[in-house]
Amino acid sequence: MDDETKRAVEEANAAFYRALESSRIERMDEVWSHEEPVRCVHPGWELITGWPRVRESWVRIFEGGQKMRVHPTEVCTQVSGEFAWVTCIENITLFNDESFDTAQAVATNLFLLRDGRWLMAHHHTSLIPMIVSEADAETIQ
Amino acid sequence: MDDETKRAVEEANAAFYRALESSRIERMDEVWSHEEPVRCVHPGWELITGWPRVRESWVRIFEGGQKMRVHPTEVCTQVSGEFAWVTCIENITLFNDESFDTAQAVATNLFLLRDGRWLMAHHHTSLIPMIVSEADAETIQ
Repeated sequence: MDDETKRAVEEANAAFYRALESSRIERMDEVWSHEEPVRCVHPGWELITGWPRVRESWVRIFEGGQKMRVHPTEVCTQVSGEFAWVTCIENITLFNDESFDTAQAVATNLFLLRDGRWLMAHHHTSLIPMIVSEADAETIQ
Repeated sequence: MDDETKRAVEEANAAFYRALESSRIERMDEVWSHEEPVRCVHPGWELITGWPRVRESWVRIFEGGQKMRVHPTEVCTQVSGEFAWVTCIENITLFNDESFDTAQAVATNLFLLRDGRWLMAHHHTSLIPMIVSEADAETIQ
């Protein structure tokens, strides 16, 4: 994998998270492949298959109106031909009226090279349970 | 993707689940790639990277002594060169002394073609929340 290819995949991965933060479905339209097979697993959801149903799931999520920041870290990229595989940790901040919640998830993101662009074909995310240390637990009590 | 390649990937996926059911680490040794990058996300666990740590996680799971059946359904396979991507539903039965529990999970499994064999390089599984229908809820009550 040359550096240019790696950077292009990392940029596609970053563009997905910017689209997620924008809460605008048009931005999701740009970063996803619209071809079969497209698949998506949101945290705690069932497997969603095919672009129309995956798109509808994002519409529902964005309609919820929850503003969020999702900062990917530990981004690890592999490429084989027209196929790229990324894992990363999603550092999530959910904004409420006057406060915010944080969470971490682990994501497997797959991209296909189509007409010179890396498009998302699969997104599988699952929440990482928060580990409360003894010190934290005392603070909470 | 020709039929022979598809069958070979499906067989690699099935062999992984047979290894899981066997609870024998030597069987896992056979179906996984031992090269970097190897990654694994068990349900509710953090991302585990590298074969030594992934192997250790399976040792810990098998030491728990929980016998299980894991039957994959809705197996969907894509191949690009030496890279294969499988999603499936894991239908899990956990056997206790005189009873059993069931669960479903969704899995993203990635395989690399090495020396003519498809070896698992990534396994990401997350549980699907059980949906209790009204009829079931009445039965439970």
